[in-house]
Amino acid sequence: MRIGELSRRTGVSVPTIKFYVREGLLPAGELTSPNQASYGETHVQRLRLIRALLDVGGLSVAGVRGVVTAVDDAEQPVHKVLGAATDPLVPRYEREPGDGIEEARKRVAGLIAARGWHADPSSPAADALAVAIVALDDLGHGRFVEVLDTYADAAEGVARADLDYVARHVAREELVESAVVGTVLGDAIFSSLRRLAHMDASDSTFGRTARGGGAE
Amino acid sequence: MRIGELSRRTGVSVPTIKFYVREGLLPAGELTSPNQASYGETHVQRLRLIRALLDVGGLSVAGVRGVVTAVDDAEQPVHKVLGAATDPLVPRYEREPGDGIEEARKRVAGLIAARGWHADPSSPAADALAVAIVALDDLGHGRFVEVLDTYADAAEGVARADLDYVARHVAREELVESAVVGTVLGDAIFSSLRRLAHMDASDSTFGRTARGGGAE
Repeated sequence: MRIGELSRRTGVSVPTIKFYVREGLLPAGELTSPNQASYGETHVQRLRLIRALLDVGGLSVAGVRGVVTAVDDAEQPVHKVLGAATDPLVPRYEREPGDGIEEARKRVAGLIAARGWHADPSSPAADALAVAIVALDDLGHGRFVEVLDTYADAAEGVARADLDYVARHVAREELVESAVVGTVLGDAIFSSLRRLAHMDASDSTFGRTARGGGAE
Repeated sequence: MRIGELSRRTGVSVPTIKFYVREGLLPAGELTSPNQASYGETHVQRLRLIRALLDVGGLSVAGVRGVVTAVDDAEQPVHKVLGAATDPLVPRYEREPGDGIEEARKRVAGLIAARGWHADPSSPAADALAVAIVALDDLGHGRFVEVLDTYADAAEGVARADLDYVARHVAREELVESAVVGTVLGDAIFSSLRRLAHMDASDSTFGRTARGGGAE
């Protein structure tokens, strides 16, 4: 197809498509004449991945380049590519890491080991978890980690469902795009559902009492 | 205690404490002489709540004022106060709501009804969920909603554990502060754990194959 049709098919403007080609995110089309290039389904697919990384994942152009390089490297196993695509999406609770960070990292490594997860204890996700644990402690809610196992159970259930969904997609590039979309929107969905479930749990815990615990 | 001790106890500077009093976030101390005021444990508690809302929740000063007004209104039932404090914390996936938003809202209301949740289908959380569902659909991943029930199961388990934790706190003000911290940091913790569980699930699904699905 010509660039005009590629633009119509994907909703990405012609100048933007040309920009992606110049930036090395999208392979150039096949030249059919000195002024004309032809594009195929791989370009449609790749544009979907680029938009997902930019718009949904909020990655920079340089970040997208890193991901598509991993996707294009046929030597890289799929689960490494998935990691490269989703590592930059880990939402971090920004806070000065206090004194407890090393202890929290050990705690996270212990949790990973105890659950038998094949997951890297030095990954951005493990680090983000350690930072959140330190923040809880600094805020006087260190006991909240009592519920960490409940959270891990829930995360395991959701992650299995996510991977089942992703595994239904066959093409390698589409798989990565699905993982990006599912990672970001899955977070949004879970936190909305958690909030709704809070309303229900709060209603049954506190809704019947006319007044709160008091003690102000 | 004097303002200097309140500052030391809470880590909040004296000018900042005075600013919170002027802005109506913190009640003034009791005047013990024309130039001296005395502060009590309720001030310590309230400062913790203010910092949690500002630093952890990212609320504006006006937003914090709204929450503390709800906390101070003894006529308001606790679960309403919890809602007022946590509604502004709902993370939204920002996207132009497409044509499907009304249908998505009905779907969310249906899910709330089917699960028997006492949760408001017009709440910010329900709306954020509808927006995420539309975004999935627009991105060509409408089928991802197949796993919505798995997400809801997980959210229910986590929300119950959250409320169990919160219910252990007796004082009304401390309860709200806990809910704010737990809502924001609970999201961060869950998404980190989900990512770690993804690594494990991805390793077992794709880790053994030397090469990906191919088909580029």
